[in-house]
Amino acid sequence: MTDFMASALKEAEEAGKRNEVPVGAVLVLDGEIIAKAGNCTRELNDVTAHAEILVIREAAKKLSNERLIGADLYVTLEPCPMCAAAISFARIRRLYYGAEDQKSGAVDNGVRLYGDKSCHHAPEVYSGISETQSSLLLKEFFKTRRD
Amino acid sequence: MTDFMASALKEAEEAGKRNEVPVGAVLVLDGEIIAKAGNCTRELNDVTAHAEILVIREAAKKLSNERLIGADLYVTLEPCPMCAAAISFARIRRLYYGAEDQKSGAVDNGVRLYGDKSCHHAPEVYSGISETQSSLLLKEFFKTRRD
Repeated sequence: MTDFMASALKEAEEAGKRNEVPVGAVLVLDGEIIAKAGNCTRELNDVTAHAEILVIREAAKKLSNERLIGADLYVTLEPCPMCAAAISFARIRRLYYGAEDQKSGAVDNGVRLYGDKSCHHAPEVYSGISETQSSLLLKEFFKTRRD
Repeated sequence: MTDFMASALKEAEEAGKRNEVPVGAVLVLDGEIIAKAGNCTRELNDVTAHAEILVIREAAKKLSNERLIGADLYVTLEPCPMCAAAISFARIRRLYYGAEDQKSGAVDNGVRLYGDKSCHHAPEVYSGISETQSSLLLKEFFKTRRD
């Protein structure tokens, strides 16, 4: 489990080097990583290019199936409402995330999407995985940009 | 205004003919349509390929800017949480939508995203535009599939 989060952290780190907000994700099926990505909104000029959306799209393309039944998502930051909804639509089984996002998260903060009756599939959620490293990457990124 | 919704309805109708849930959207900037799309989740095997996401991505690519300041979105159905969040991230100015989606909407139903303090930009919202036609397209589509 921590190995998969380590891979997500590596994606986050690489995103930071490309001047993207350092968030990374990997999608795992049957014990193997089938898609990995870091946040890419700036490079692609695409507000939807969050790490979670990129891995969901890549995996669905690879499997020729829009539903990723049995797949688990590891992401370094608590998903926003856009990603939380996409995770639900893709029928992802388990969501493991690193740091909480008190400002823009939608799982354990904000609209808490998975607890709303409009949400028709909720993944099992495990939080706080490699939280310190995930959070540190983001703090350092924003500190550098402020300086 | 109703002309733009008529274009969105046409996109919805064409989506239905392709066996997609008939929802359509157009994005308008300075009085001109800069992107239009119908729902395309099945064809693309992509849960994120809702009409709203497709027009936001297309317009951002065209303008080489991830933020669509001053752009207005016309969509035949109330956006879901994924699309409502993307609309917010893209800084869309006004959202005009047709039918309410009491089951899966996130603007005037469900999590009512734009009223949550985690939402950092909310468009002006105008609902009920060509509501009857928008709703009828969806009802007929699902009726045909049940029969």
